[in-house]
Amino acid sequence: MPLKFANRVNEIQSSEVRELLKLTEQPDFISFAGGLPAPELFPIEEIRQVNEWLLKEDGQAALQYSTTEGFEPLRAWIAQRMNQKLQTNFDPDNILITSGSQQAIDLTGKIFLDEGDVVFCESPTYLAALNAFRAYGCQFVEIATDENGMDMEDLEAEIKQYPQAKLIYVIPEFQNPTGLSWNLERRQELAKLSEQYQLPVLEDNPYGELRFEGEDLPSIRHFDQSGTIICTGTFSKIFCPGYRIGWIAGDKEILKKYTIMKQGTDLHSNTKAQREIALYLEHFSIDKHIATIRDLYLHRRNLMLAAIEQYFPKEVQYTRPEGGLFVWVTLPEYMDVRPIAQECLAEKVAFVSGETFYPTSENHHTFRLNFSSMPDERIKIGIEKLGRVLYNYTK
Amino acid sequence: MPLKFANRVNEIQSSEVRELLKLTEQPDFISFAGGLPAPELFPIEEIRQVNEWLLKEDGQAALQYSTTEGFEPLRAWIAQRMNQKLQTNFDPDNILITSGSQQAIDLTGKIFLDEGDVVFCESPTYLAALNAFRAYGCQFVEIATDENGMDMEDLEAEIKQYPQAKLIYVIPEFQNPTGLSWNLERRQELAKLSEQYQLPVLEDNPYGELRFEGEDLPSIRHFDQSGTIICTGTFSKIFCPGYRIGWIAGDKEILKKYTIMKQGTDLHSNTKAQREIALYLEHFSIDKHIATIRDLYLHRRNLMLAAIEQYFPKEVQYTRPEGGLFVWVTLPEYMDVRPIAQECLAEKVAFVSGETFYPTSENHHTFRLNFSSMPDERIKIGIEKLGRVLYNYTK
Repeated sequence: MPLKFANRVNEIQSSEVRELLKLTEQPDFISFAGGLPAPELFPIEEIRQVNEWLLKEDGQAALQYSTTEGFEPLRAWIAQRMNQKLQTNFDPDNILITSGSQQAIDLTGKIFLDEGDVVFCESPTYLAALNAFRAYGCQFVEIATDENGMDMEDLEAEIKQYPQAKLIYVIPEFQNPTGLSWNLERRQELAKLSEQYQLPVLEDNPYGELRFEGEDLPSIRHFDQSGTIICTGTFSKIFCPGYRIGWIAGDKEILKKYTIMKQGTDLHSNTKAQREIALYLEHFSIDKHIATIRDLYLHRRNLMLAAIEQYFPKEVQYTRPEGGLFVWVTLPEYMDVRPIAQECLAEKVAFVSGETFYPTSENHHTFRLNFSSMPDERIKIGIEKLGRVLYNYTK
Repeated sequence: MPLKFANRVNEIQSSEVRELLKLTEQPDFISFAGGLPAPELFPIEEIRQVNEWLLKEDGQAALQYSTTEGFEPLRAWIAQRMNQKLQTNFDPDNILITSGSQQAIDLTGKIFLDEGDVVFCESPTYLAALNAFRAYGCQFVEIATDENGMDMEDLEAEIKQYPQAKLIYVIPEFQNPTGLSWNLERRQELAKLSEQYQLPVLEDNPYGELRFEGEDLPSIRHFDQSGTIICTGTFSKIFCPGYRIGWIAGDKEILKKYTIMKQGTDLHSNTKAQREIALYLEHFSIDKHIATIRDLYLHRRNLMLAAIEQYFPKEVQYTRPEGGLFVWVTLPEYMDVRPIAQECLAEKVAFVSGETFYPTSENHHTFRLNFSSMPDERIKIGIEKLGRVLYNYTK
């Protein structure tokens, strides 16, 4: 008689990306699979300095239990930053600190989703969000998505077909996995539909600060008239992911429900991490730091696109992201990515096949390439190897 | 048309203890309400040193994403420590690092509980575990509990009455809220029932290292013959709670399910915090540190018990815990704790009324006192004030 687990245990598989990441930890692997920031840019000396100050001046508070809502000066910084960058209108009490934006996504599922509820998402979309929501027994409905974002006509048709839907999940800036961003019109339109149908939107934005070309657009939340747009952000891509510090931003009544749910989930996020980040933000220029990240990623993106141009078969298509971490590759329909991925792994080159990013539809001719974490030489070599494998499968 | 939340949102209220804690942040409050460790014992200088080493030698890895399972050297230390202190038989791969033991409890709910499932628990039991499990829509059945632990006859009767029950939740060492520990016989018996009915037990043990009188007993897991006992522990009470680092320990097949579920929940726990703790354990003596904590808490317990003896009415009963953080007070049945708690708050003395620790039964004549976090003088003054209020309500 085996132990009886919850139904959700059978529905959720280990993330293929994380399994792949374990494999690619071998030092001779060239991995375009992860979404790792470049660790050589972590401001280690500044963090050392911050720890000195923190432990000298405020050690007891930094190591003690703290409020579920999070450290007030950090929440104040986040509110101000969002208002400045995303044209929102938040104050510190609109912000709840979470254990990475992954927890913000999980808590969103916990707040909104009962078994069988429908979640609308982009096609393709962020894999680990799918797994977070799946734990609450939801169904996904993929909305047709092009280079300008979700197709609003398709979305409205699906809303009408699923009047009991509970949530719309989107990543409008340098989307994971495609690297593409929504245009202004779609943002406005989504805010309008969200209000009209009182259907909350989770606007997930981990990469928005990493724009190296083009112009920033206002967030979807900027167009929110009735408090139905909830935002999440993170320090993982602009500072260091090891801290696991992210946030939820939204109307106070909704934030209260997140806060109560977070109490039972992990009481609060790491006190010391929150204070380290707040001290860093107070004493150093994160704008300068982000500029350094942008410069490097732009350089690596250019390098990767040039190598793709040189080494990939001409019939292979790819995005040219203006920011973020990812290039999205589309093969001709006759090419199946699965044997290609296997052959590349044998060559010690890794990427993530597109099929994992589609919750319901089948897709075997796309894949995602990360350009942020490999040094120049390995990007060139890796893309060259990948190109050779691709040529083996062309007609 | 308001937003539609998940059903669980309506079932979970903000933890009264955490709301009370906010109130008692005023510096002139004497609070016996929380479960805060004494912050004056945090090894701040050692942590400063650890940060120096860590950021000099291993900064990039300490600030980067890491595996869901957690930092191997830390998992190895935990396995060894449990084997030594709790007579278990774990290796590092039996351990999953969690964001505090609160997350270990939450993940246990997520792994095991579907809507309507039954959880057996002590009466009274840890409030925040109730809220964590409630999020998965379970029902609680309180098992009669005395000064030696759960009543095993009552447990078996309830198991027979609820054959679809999914989980037994217990805190066998210096229980929260009563401060009492299970005797050897009950531990053996619970392991036997758990195997016989293949009903998993979560053995929650945040306070076991804080014994200042009497002899350690083997854990319930020590008697586990078939892998149905799952353990959780934490660094919050023996090191610093602000790190939010705890763990789950159990058979590897079960651990896999926890790991997959944790991926979707928050990817992994704070990398830097895990490495700071591991470096501290490598270079400093946590045994010496724990001895200092034990000495202080014994001193404060003695002080509190002496003050209770002096200032409380004779008909009021209380436990004499051999470790941990809490004394549990039982009033004569004719005294109602609710007006007493209100009057004490007006006097700026806080404690947690017992009713919150009972998931189903009504109880208005008990309360919990924390003795770990207030300095000597305030323990005396607070208990004296509390005693005066109690005398107002005696016959």
